[in-house]
Amino acid sequence: MRRVGIIGIGMTIFGELWDKSLREIGIEAGLEAIKDADITADDIDAIYVGNMSSGIFTHQEHIAPMFADYTGLTRRNIPATRVEAAGASGGLALRQGYLDVASGMSDIVVVGGAEKMTDVSTTEATSALATTADQEWEAFFGMTYPGLFALMARKHMQDYGTTKEQLAMVAVKNHYNGSFNPKAQFRRPIKLEMAMNAPMVADPLGVFDCSAVSDGGAAVILCSLDKAREIKDDFVEIVGSGQASDTISLHARDDICTMRAGVLAAKRAYDMAGIKPADVDVAEVHDSHTIAEIIGIEDLGFFEKGKGGKAAQDGKTALDGEIPVNTSGGLKAKGHPMGATGIAQAVEIVQQLRGEAGERQIKDAEIGLAHNIGGSGATGVVHVFKRGW
Amino acid sequence: MRRVGIIGIGMTIFGELWDKSLREIGIEAGLEAIKDADITADDIDAIYVGNMSSGIFTHQEHIAPMFADYTGLTRRNIPATRVEAAGASGGLALRQGYLDVASGMSDIVVVGGAEKMTDVSTTEATSALATTADQEWEAFFGMTYPGLFALMARKHMQDYGTTKEQLAMVAVKNHYNGSFNPKAQFRRPIKLEMAMNAPMVADPLGVFDCSAVSDGGAAVILCSLDKAREIKDDFVEIVGSGQASDTISLHARDDICTMRAGVLAAKRAYDMAGIKPADVDVAEVHDSHTIAEIIGIEDLGFFEKGKGGKAAQDGKTALDGEIPVNTSGGLKAKGHPMGATGIAQAVEIVQQLRGEAGERQIKDAEIGLAHNIGGSGATGVVHVFKRGW
Repeated sequence: MRRVGIIGIGMTIFGELWDKSLREIGIEAGLEAIKDADITADDIDAIYVGNMSSGIFTHQEHIAPMFADYTGLTRRNIPATRVEAAGASGGLALRQGYLDVASGMSDIVVVGGAEKMTDVSTTEATSALATTADQEWEAFFGMTYPGLFALMARKHMQDYGTTKEQLAMVAVKNHYNGSFNPKAQFRRPIKLEMAMNAPMVADPLGVFDCSAVSDGGAAVILCSLDKAREIKDDFVEIVGSGQASDTISLHARDDICTMRAGVLAAKRAYDMAGIKPADVDVAEVHDSHTIAEIIGIEDLGFFEKGKGGKAAQDGKTALDGEIPVNTSGGLKAKGHPMGATGIAQAVEIVQQLRGEAGERQIKDAEIGLAHNIGGSGATGVVHVFKRGW
Repeated sequence: MRRVGIIGIGMTIFGELWDKSLREIGIEAGLEAIKDADITADDIDAIYVGNMSSGIFTHQEHIAPMFADYTGLTRRNIPATRVEAAGASGGLALRQGYLDVASGMSDIVVVGGAEKMTDVSTTEATSALATTADQEWEAFFGMTYPGLFALMARKHMQDYGTTKEQLAMVAVKNHYNGSFNPKAQFRRPIKLEMAMNAPMVADPLGVFDCSAVSDGGAAVILCSLDKAREIKDDFVEIVGSGQASDTISLHARDDICTMRAGVLAAKRAYDMAGIKPADVDVAEVHDSHTIAEIIGIEDLGFFEKGKGGKAAQDGKTALDGEIPVNTSGGLKAKGHPMGATGIAQAVEIVQQLRGEAGERQIKDAEIGLAHNIGGSGATGVVHVFKRGW
């Protein structure tokens, strides 16, 4: 397999983008990445798009050629492919783009992710999200995502003594980090008591334990490493890519305090990269809900199983902690436009490794990791990135 | 890039499968392919699923891990990825599976395609299909697929003298071929006058010029060629894979008598395989509408532009013609469950190259081709297959 680098990144502001359509969001992120890479549309060999439910949210399927079309990439009629895996759609699109370049089929590939979630009512959005759970055994009976993650949180509390305050500390940290990210949906720090006393969504998860409904897009430009060296001084290499799946429904799993797909995706990525969890300098961890980040940092091997809540409480995952997690603000504060999320994680890590993360910069970050989960853990995908110069 | 073979195929009957859910359809096709390949689930490294609109049709997104789960493939928690590109979802899933093995990431991959379209009303199905056209510039104004292809047909008639009878001959041929396919949705030959006098859908296209709404699934097992040689005597090699995209809306194209994405996908596949159109012994060509097959056989270089209608009329694409097209019955008679279509084309070609196509067998077929189109031609994907022993 050929080595692959990232030579450009782009991202829209995440939030309620009332004045932008799905296609405008995708175009904005894609063109910014092309500009950042200092290439032209004619240099691109293929496009991959991560998107969860554009058919339900905007009545538009078949969006990969649509984005290629509206960004002017049809001039060379390059292949355009959409990949879907719920909230991990972006991470999986990144992996497919990686495989395309690694195989030798393409030299330069743009991988974008986009979701427009606010053109429907909150009820419709909740229902759309639930289509990524098991429709016949979960969603049909009224289960929603906060409900699924609340089950996981309750069990984690019971088995490991994790507290509501520890969950809230994840939200406090991520909103603090998000306050330094000009592209985050929420850019104001919150106080612990605010998170603790927030309206309940699904016990024990309150409003601040759940990511919001967001619009947004993100894009990266992948390039074979030989070519990357010619084009850019400051590329980042993808040194590990791991993906795994698990049962689609929560009830079918042995243990709901872990996400096996996340554990195995991480193991595969670490093995490929030849690193250990302790080698990671900065990580974006899928915090669709605060409990997901706690489970994530345990599953990634940053902390022992059951110690994730305590680690969050002790500030070990803060900007100045031993392993800074979700420096971008995470899905929690940066926003969680499903298909864009996995790509936006990569964008943050590239910014960190390039030293361009401003007030949230982790000093001398050399190895970064992105952990992207689909559904309640049926899909897990982990990428490891390394400063490439 | 590593060489890749197909060592197993599976397919459900296509049709109105009232007694089967989406997941049952996927499982049936997948397990049949695994059995045909003479491997076990534990041998499989990854799964790819082509599907157009399961979110709209069945309120179930995130179906790749769902299929992995329900076929028992979660035992090894293998990666599971869904690919979408309207009616070309299957062909694109095949290409992603191909790249996965070609890159060296996986040795054995199952690629499935499935769609359950009959659980909604005809109006809802038509609306779901229209989400793959340009929502803002076509579907919003009431355009449906028969309407788009009717425009192409009218222009082809005007520019090249193509007749309604020539269109009808495509339907007659494909229904005849389908009568020999035990898995086809329609297994009765039709008469020319029946097709000519059928109720109009969108002038000049009548009922027999349009493929039906179908349920169905299909699967193939891909394997690195080294390993394929160990496992099977009668594998088929994928010697060419080409993909291209075009404008999503019809009005943005210079010429609507051709599908540029199909032309370029074919060129890329031919170049990769090192063959010419005349080397192809048997082809599955995307006949979502009769005019699509006529444009397809021209775009593939089997016949000069404008001569496709005459070629169909003269029987040149019949079972005993110079280039037999849609021996399976095509989308027209075999059925067109969107996500399954591109994989079912591969299944037919493998059967032909293995000499297992029964009464519709093309003698000594060595090189086969599958041509899969998404939308009105925004996506084109062509694969070339070769008998591998």
